[in-house]
Amino acid sequence: MDTIITISRQFGSGGRLIGKMLAEKLGIPFYDREIIVKAAQNCGFAREFVEDNEQKRNGIASFAVAPAWIGISPANSFDNFEAKIFAAEAGAIESFAHGGACVIVGRCADYVLKNKFDCLNVFVYADSASRVKRVVEVYKDASDVKKAQKLVRDKDKFRARHYKYYTENEWGGASNYNLCIDSGKLGIDACVSILYEAYVQYDGRQK
Amino acid sequence: MDTIITISRQFGSGGRLIGKMLAEKLGIPFYDREIIVKAAQNCGFAREFVEDNEQKRNGIASFAVAPAWIGISPANSFDNFEAKIFAAEAGAIESFAHGGACVIVGRCADYVLKNKFDCLNVFVYADSASRVKRVVEVYKDASDVKKAQKLVRDKDKFRARHYKYYTENEWGGASNYNLCIDSGKLGIDACVSILYEAYVQYDGRQK
Repeated sequence: MDTIITISRQFGSGGRLIGKMLAEKLGIPFYDREIIVKAAQNCGFAREFVEDNEQKRNGIASFAVAPAWIGISPANSFDNFEAKIFAAEAGAIESFAHGGACVIVGRCADYVLKNKFDCLNVFVYADSASRVKRVVEVYKDASDVKKAQKLVRDKDKFRARHYKYYTENEWGGASNYNLCIDSGKLGIDACVSILYEAYVQYDGRQK
Repeated sequence: MDTIITISRQFGSGGRLIGKMLAEKLGIPFYDREIIVKAAQNCGFAREFVEDNEQKRNGIASFAVAPAWIGISPANSFDNFEAKIFAAEAGAIESFAHGGACVIVGRCADYVLKNKFDCLNVFVYADSASRVKRVVEVYKDASDVKKAQKLVRDKDKFRARHYKYYTENEWGGASNYNLCIDSGKLGIDACVSILYEAYVQYDGRQK
């Protein structure tokens, strides 16, 4: 009963909520923002700084040395910040995984835990229209369709680039995961039930 | 209770067996070789000819007219045969779908039924080592590892090209399916239970 579930998810797919409900149903811990808190402790940055700067990589080739005109020293270049945050989050994820069965959302947890822990890696996705609809309903700062469409597009672009940069794999490529599930078609509750069944079947077999 | 399950699968993943067991558990028909039989009736070719020539497309640009040196008339060019077989199989798949809930394996059924029937589209995959192991165990003509490795590689290449040619989508790309499931990690029986849960959840909601 030590299988860890990692959840990667398209923005607006409800993957975070599915993970939370699944953890509650299984009676195991759920880690999302807790990773930020622990990572901040690990690297000594303020929690808000970690939160603002995780997954900011924008696909521009990284600078070995920050250009002088940016006005920050090489040691404090953006790349340096992000790499420190990634390492601190990876450390947080590993320490949570050492605690036993849990659900971990985002932050390349599937990659961080690979070959170290027994994981069920899940990808939650949905068609664009379902995700925009959900974003309009749930997120206060994207209350109209145009804003929501832009947010869905931008967030997924960032997530894909971040994942690719650190793992060298394709974000959302089925072969990186053990289960990919379409929350737009199936709905949030059904996804929870299906993943619950997957966990019970898999974890039961490992005992 | 009219949801149709289509199953695409990597060669050696056990996707066919999973589909068969799922159909039995749900008490609904299972269509695989039946598609060949019905397609042969539809297009007038012998069953063996349909079987030998479905999914033979090898990725070479298609000829509008067969080159003269091949020695067959344009009307009987290979492309012409394959297109006829594809159309006949599509017709067979649609007629089975009209009969209500069922499980259909392969032959781009997800694409053929799109926007016409309510489908749960499933992709079954597994890591290469699991598939080779299964092929060695199950297939008489690939009883050693080298043969099995070649068969796994070749069969998937054909399936991917065939799917791409007719649907213009990527075979195995998560967004074409509602559930992608790793039979290597989860095992055949667990996959059946998980897909059963998915069907019951989804189909129950549609009633």
